[in-house]
Amino acid sequence: MTPLLKGNAVVGQSGGPTAVINQSLAGVIEAAADAPMIRRLLGARHGVRGVIEGKFVDLKGIGGARLERLAATPGSALGSTRDKPDEAYCRKIFEAFAARDVRYFFYIGGNDSADTARIVNELAQRAGYELRVFHIPKTIDNDLRVTDHCPGYGSAARFVALAMMGEDRDNASLLGIKISVIMGRHAGWLTAASMLARQNTDDGPHLIYVPESPFSLTQFTRDVKEVYDRLGRCLIALSEGIADGHGKEIAVKLALKLGKPVERDEHGHPQLSGTGVLGDFLAEYIKGKFKEKIRIRADTYGYLQRSFAGCVSPVDQAEARRVGRTAVKYAVAGDFDGSVALRRKKTSRYGVECFRTKLTSVARETKDLPPKYINRAGNNISESFRAYAAPLVGELPRIGRI
Amino acid sequence: MTPLLKGNAVVGQSGGPTAVINQSLAGVIEAAADAPMIRRLLGARHGVRGVIEGKFVDLKGIGGARLERLAATPGSALGSTRDKPDEAYCRKIFEAFAARDVRYFFYIGGNDSADTARIVNELAQRAGYELRVFHIPKTIDNDLRVTDHCPGYGSAARFVALAMMGEDRDNASLLGIKISVIMGRHAGWLTAASMLARQNTDDGPHLIYVPESPFSLTQFTRDVKEVYDRLGRCLIALSEGIADGHGKEIAVKLALKLGKPVERDEHGHPQLSGTGVLGDFLAEYIKGKFKEKIRIRADTYGYLQRSFAGCVSPVDQAEARRVGRTAVKYAVAGDFDGSVALRRKKTSRYGVECFRTKLTSVARETKDLPPKYINRAGNNISESFRAYAAPLVGELPRIGRI
Repeated sequence: MTPLLKGNAVVGQSGGPTAVINQSLAGVIEAAADAPMIRRLLGARHGVRGVIEGKFVDLKGIGGARLERLAATPGSALGSTRDKPDEAYCRKIFEAFAARDVRYFFYIGGNDSADTARIVNELAQRAGYELRVFHIPKTIDNDLRVTDHCPGYGSAARFVALAMMGEDRDNASLLGIKISVIMGRHAGWLTAASMLARQNTDDGPHLIYVPESPFSLTQFTRDVKEVYDRLGRCLIALSEGIADGHGKEIAVKLALKLGKPVERDEHGHPQLSGTGVLGDFLAEYIKGKFKEKIRIRADTYGYLQRSFAGCVSPVDQAEARRVGRTAVKYAVAGDFDGSVALRRKKTSRYGVECFRTKLTSVARETKDLPPKYINRAGNNISESFRAYAAPLVGELPRIGRI
Repeated sequence: MTPLLKGNAVVGQSGGPTAVINQSLAGVIEAAADAPMIRRLLGARHGVRGVIEGKFVDLKGIGGARLERLAATPGSALGSTRDKPDEAYCRKIFEAFAARDVRYFFYIGGNDSADTARIVNELAQRAGYELRVFHIPKTIDNDLRVTDHCPGYGSAARFVALAMMGEDRDNASLLGIKISVIMGRHAGWLTAASMLARQNTDDGPHLIYVPESPFSLTQFTRDVKEVYDRLGRCLIALSEGIADGHGKEIAVKLALKLGKPVERDEHGHPQLSGTGVLGDFLAEYIKGKFKEKIRIRADTYGYLQRSFAGCVSPVDQAEARRVGRTAVKYAVAGDFDGSVALRRKKTSRYGVECFRTKLTSVARETKDLPPKYINRAGNNISESFRAYAAPLVGELPRIGRI
């Protein structure tokens, strides 16, 4: 039997927040309260940055209604960070842990956070310092490997489905062409969820474009014209990260075509979130392709997709809580490190079980939307995606029509 | 006693849809079913356009679960139109009515729709044709005169409040400056609702700008710096229609300053909805005013504000239904024309009563946000606005913080 490892624990949140990331934090808090070997539970302010700057907050004792209110609030209650620690940074993290008798580290985040957890874990092992490190999955992008899906995705996908459902009725009211840009630089999981809005024949979105499928402006124009000629309207869902066959972002190509500048972020990527540039460029481009005057509008869903208060999938909420609790249970049960993953049960009614996977299996690389969910023409999502996504999103309202 | 006026009725929907405009339609359908003097209830497809093109759908017989599903669906189920009929157009409407023995006309819309109803009514009077015309109020802008508030506003304001609540937690997670652009070219009612998101000291939005208050880029820069220096973050809500003291739109001024083109619509207005241009320009402008590198993002809430499925204020829903029913009751009760308005009861618990007002009192002009709700500096909304708006929006989730 593994001897009990007594000591303190640190929990942190990293990367883009979600609507349920505080559920995972609440899961850690309540499981840690039940674990006598965890003396203090320290929340790191703004993730690993708080660790190296010594900014911690004591989390033991939060419970009851206060814990539930915290769990139900979107955003990262501890604060988040975009820092991607290298080995030197991780050494500082490890030193901060050793100085505080920290024996448990729970890091809620995506693939970069799993990689940080992996490096810190290896440093501790090399130093012969027993540290149990668990990555707790979180991302609206749904692009972590191994797990069936990621906590945070279901609620963001619910937002997209509800938004698209309303947009379709709005588009049917005033007609014309509507382009809606959805988060996802590399993976189309979130954009694919827009298909859940369709309940009747002719319901939009009529066209769906994801980064996994090469995007061509020529085909786009043809696709939009075909739908518009048929229905007198066209609702389009597309990922911010759509790119051509050579991986060149469409936002950049359009900027060149339209003779406009495009802003770039610190990594040289064109800025796609927190700006309406792709949607605006596409609307302008497609406007020029029609002879007649047509109502063309573009919206970029932006940060509401991950933060809108009160738009939460009940399944996502419960699973986010569960992976937090499970990480603590795994860590105190033995000399384990890893990431918590979800496996879908092979039952007719939806259910999942948690399992432990290695940090290396989740760190760094991501998981694209599989080709089976994309139609042959690359301009829509297959009906088979509904069985995958619907249970994660929860029940949707029924559309009434005349 | 007024003799019963037997004949057919027409109902139409006009202008920008809302989340509850179909509640008003359902109200008309159910009240008409109870009115034996209304023989047929015809729904005009795409408002007055359907009337002059003879495109009608029979609405009698819709009831039960089908009616409720319809009522709960966002968008204009009959289709909407942006047509603003002149006298010649109204004559065609009147002729279409006379040819079909239409004696009741219910038009769900904003101030332009009230004006259309007014002209059609006057033409009927001049021709000695008895026609009872009722305007049924609808607008997310909340800018109709006479009525305390407009059906459609409460649900859109709820969307804005929930969005801002989540945005504030997102901004507190990753810090930096966030600009969110809210619908409203002339009236700041919807943007003002963003103040409902604030529950604790330091909660955002920290700055709120409405079209009723002249906007200066110099003051904006000073305001943002002051908040950012104090909190390390800043969440800003602003109306798409903000303009300087001379009524010149800020989007246009920024375009000139940044050397960028700005698109204009058919009326020569810069296009503000269905584009991210104002937010993007402001983000770029403010970025240039900081020496250090700061995370600055902009989102434009766009059409989701009026169409998001499942984000409905229960009060708004009930009132939208009620004004539809009441219009039919007024019309069949006597030789009346007018618009249905809401008066707030002077009781401690929120409640309203309906009353009839003249078409001329609602047509054309609109109602701005009163100065009493805007702070002296013109960069925020007063706390007193909460008492006005909170009952219309419904209960909001409580924010949990560590």
